[in-house]
Amino acid sequence: MKRYLRLILLAPLLLAAALHAASPTSVERWGVFEVALKGPSAGNPFVDVRFGAVFTDGHTTVEVPGFYDGDGVYKVRFSPETTGNWRYETKSNRWDLTGKTGTFAVTAPGPGNRGPVRVFNTYHFAYADGTPYKQVGTTIYNWIDAPDAVQEETLRTLAAAPFNKARMLLTQQPTAYQERFAPPRWPFAGSPPDQWDFTRFNPEYWRHYEQRIVQLLELGIEADVILFNPYGRWGFETMTAEADERYVRYVVARLGAYRNIWWSLANEFDFLRTKTDADWDRLGRLVQACDPHQRLRSIHNGHRIFDQTKPWITHVSMQNGAAVEEPGRAEMYRSVWHKPVVYDEVKYEGKTHFRWGNLSGEEMVHRFWCGTVAGTYVGHGDYFMTVTEDTWTSFGGKLTGVSPPRLAFLRRILEESPAQGIDQVDKWQDTQTAGVHGLYYLTYFGRETPTEWTFKLFRNGVVDGQRYQVDVIDTWAMTITPVEGEFVTRKLDNYHFVDANGRTVKLPGKPGMAVRVRRLGADGKPAATVLPTD
Amino acid sequence: MKRYLRLILLAPLLLAAALHAASPTSVERWGVFEVALKGPSAGNPFVDVRFGAVFTDGHTTVEVPGFYDGDGVYKVRFSPETTGNWRYETKSNRWDLTGKTGTFAVTAPGPGNRGPVRVFNTYHFAYADGTPYKQVGTTIYNWIDAPDAVQEETLRTLAAAPFNKARMLLTQQPTAYQERFAPPRWPFAGSPPDQWDFTRFNPEYWRHYEQRIVQLLELGIEADVILFNPYGRWGFETMTAEADERYVRYVVARLGAYRNIWWSLANEFDFLRTKTDADWDRLGRLVQACDPHQRLRSIHNGHRIFDQTKPWITHVSMQNGAAVEEPGRAEMYRSVWHKPVVYDEVKYEGKTHFRWGNLSGEEMVHRFWCGTVAGTYVGHGDYFMTVTEDTWTSFGGKLTGVSPPRLAFLRRILEESPAQGIDQVDKWQDTQTAGVHGLYYLTYFGRETPTEWTFKLFRNGVVDGQRYQVDVIDTWAMTITPVEGEFVTRKLDNYHFVDANGRTVKLPGKPGMAVRVRRLGADGKPAATVLPTD
Repeated sequence: MKRYLRLILLAPLLLAAALHAASPTSVERWGVFEVALKGPSAGNPFVDVRFGAVFTDGHTTVEVPGFYDGDGVYKVRFSPETTGNWRYETKSNRWDLTGKTGTFAVTAPGPGNRGPVRVFNTYHFAYADGTPYKQVGTTIYNWIDAPDAVQEETLRTLAAAPFNKARMLLTQQPTAYQERFAPPRWPFAGSPPDQWDFTRFNPEYWRHYEQRIVQLLELGIEADVILFNPYGRWGFETMTAEADERYVRYVVARLGAYRNIWWSLANEFDFLRTKTDADWDRLGRLVQACDPHQRLRSIHNGHRIFDQTKPWITHVSMQNGAAVEEPGRAEMYRSVWHKPVVYDEVKYEGKTHFRWGNLSGEEMVHRFWCGTVAGTYVGHGDYFMTVTEDTWTSFGGKLTGVSPPRLAFLRRILEESPAQGIDQVDKWQDTQTAGVHGLYYLTYFGRETPTEWTFKLFRNGVVDGQRYQVDVIDTWAMTITPVEGEFVTRKLDNYHFVDANGRTVKLPGKPGMAVRVRRLGADGKPAATVLPTD
Repeated sequence: MKRYLRLILLAPLLLAAALHAASPTSVERWGVFEVALKGPSAGNPFVDVRFGAVFTDGHTTVEVPGFYDGDGVYKVRFSPETTGNWRYETKSNRWDLTGKTGTFAVTAPGPGNRGPVRVFNTYHFAYADGTPYKQVGTTIYNWIDAPDAVQEETLRTLAAAPFNKARMLLTQQPTAYQERFAPPRWPFAGSPPDQWDFTRFNPEYWRHYEQRIVQLLELGIEADVILFNPYGRWGFETMTAEADERYVRYVVARLGAYRNIWWSLANEFDFLRTKTDADWDRLGRLVQACDPHQRLRSIHNGHRIFDQTKPWITHVSMQNGAAVEEPGRAEMYRSVWHKPVVYDEVKYEGKTHFRWGNLSGEEMVHRFWCGTVAGTYVGHGDYFMTVTEDTWTSFGGKLTGVSPPRLAFLRRILEESPAQGIDQVDKWQDTQTAGVHGLYYLTYFGRETPTEWTFKLFRNGVVDGQRYQVDVIDTWAMTITPVEGEFVTRKLDNYHFVDANGRTVKLPGKPGMAVRVRRLGADGKPAATVLPTD
């Protein structure tokens, strides 16, 4: 990870000396290769100048839009997918930015660089190098608008937390907190509350934002950046269609090369009364069209669900707390859209008079488990409200809730689960069990308090005589207790197999329990991460 | 209803005497006006001859495709939407069927004729005259393939049953029953098992089918006819695209004028391995394009859900028994598609070794109530299997289960509910309550066994001082017990209103209970069927 960073941080220094000539000569695969050129600064370069570059390794050719970074400097950022020798040539509607060429070597990724996260196996995610990505997200909407010291504290909190994704806004949301601590930087030229020049961006804001993106990347955290939000009073929500599109192109050109970027078109899109569904579709298609890196794309709902069949939507970013109160519900959207479902907002762990922010820690953890055994993913929030609303989920800082260690425990279990992702093994029949037929089963009993579980597997992938090992999992106490001995399958009826000796498993009669069933390999060890061979 | 029938039954007699000249001179609104002409019978008229007519009342002009009925007779059927004087002119690629004109008067609908059912208020249905239609469906797939005496018994059973919709196949499904009782008629010329001429229909089959459609109409039952099914062994499932389309056009031209027709593209479309999603989309668009009467259209799934956003789909016909095990699930598809959701298959009341056919009567009724308080509709099945599979849901005859009287009771409650349909009043928060804000609330407790309910209403549409009347409903014993006195609203917090005197309602502590809360009008009577004025 360090080598990656060095390139990024080096770039400004090199630029100060001799632009273009100083472009780095190598970059690691999935890193950021940046070309910076000096060009015109007269007029309004944000609007007047088109700039970009064509990159090729002889097999693949990629057109990459650039952006104006202020002070007469133009940049284009490219994250190469393959190692080898690459070449670029710039394009512009200004002659002095056109036809500049260069070559560079793309080297193997450094430690911790697994590439960008992509959709994998229809309902799941994986890094580009094939490593499964098991999403355990959190929400810190305005953390980059907090004072810089608080931002540093947020990074320290994240370093010790279980989260591998953070949802965050790109433009400010007004809160009571900001009456004491005004946002230190703004995305556009001008000044609050409403004196903005939407034709000019504020490079300082974006450089700072990028630094935070890179710091999240260092921590192994995906940055799910939200392009539009409905909360404004500053006019970002009533820009013209032309300004919206210029903003989208600028953001995508600046940030899209960072491999941990995900695009969220909007938070609670339906609460933004100034845009229609057709506007969202147009902007979604624009992101898809102008992003050569094809980062993940979603749009997050409030009360009304967007048409998730749109081809530009790579995965579902859902707000519906009720949907993860039990796993039978959580599965339902998955089968509708045949895309990964991330329940990004399921209400927050917290203590407020708002009913969207008063879950107990137990309930937060319960919702994660419901989503998990439905073959979906869940997001966390922490909202212990003070007068100034400086909660974790608003402005970062410290976590107050008690769910995070349990979410770390869940993440560990997920990362030990099969690489292809777990799906309900008997859809619309057994809503509590996800797994891979004949290999791995995770059954979550939720609020039920059974004292016994009969070993029983759905027929698919199972034949007589298979050997399994069973663990009893306490999702709250964070214990995994192996059950002694093996379970050997025998056909019970048209639908199920049981243990040949009728074995059952004792359970402690309390809520939040689960059992994990793993097939034993020839070596007598659980084969949970092995792809089925049949 | 009788007047309607007379026209239909009269037509063949008139045709026998003097075709065309004998066309009736009047028809009631939403009835069937039929033109029959003698034409060529050489070659293959089903393929060679195009025939239809243009109908106009001077304001609206409708092109209606006709069909060949055998023996040199061509027919076109039109169901007028408006009263007044109408005129028609036939069109054909044969001169002797072209340019025939006539006039007729469309009179007011007779008793019981409320017009066709259409989508109403996004999630609901109503007859064309505005009367709400509260769907309580049943399934009798192959009843028209049973011996004629059994078909007559089915009609007698339906006359005494609560159902206002019947799902039924258009082509045969093979079952053990048919080894004893072969289907009396077949849709195509030829003979079973596979000697068919798919370019020629068997008019006798279709005339008989039409008679049954009209008999259902007389009973107030919508006929949800299923164009394709995956169960065949006779070759209907492997016809060419051309034959599929000819079949669709023939069925729509023959049956579409009957106002109780609904089109179901397929049963368990995904189990039909011989068609792709693109095929279904093409056939769905074809039904939409060739049906001048625009009857309701759906496609029913097995294990995989079709893309219900397709514009030709008017409502969702869902198979997912788990989705109506509790109302929180049942709501979820509704908010996805913004179309009415009918859970046409939720497993059947019955006794079999199949898990899709072994619900208790209690569970069948429970699923109807779950669907109801989710603002959706549910379908019934009755599958008490014998060796020959002559169950109600396969071949009609008699009902065995105990749910139908309870479904009649539910239908009565639905028909007393607000005309605009009931929706969840606090979506994704209170999953047990459907209603109309400030007017009507129906809360179903499902498998819970509360002994008390605190009068509490969600804030929307409610202010202090509104007066309500409460009924306790036993969904199984079929009782409605009014609670004495009134309940008067007082604001509790940011979300709810309670009774000003803190009144609660006693409940018997058993499953299957519900409460109904109705606003009292100025006259002190429940105003449940009044549209809100605010």
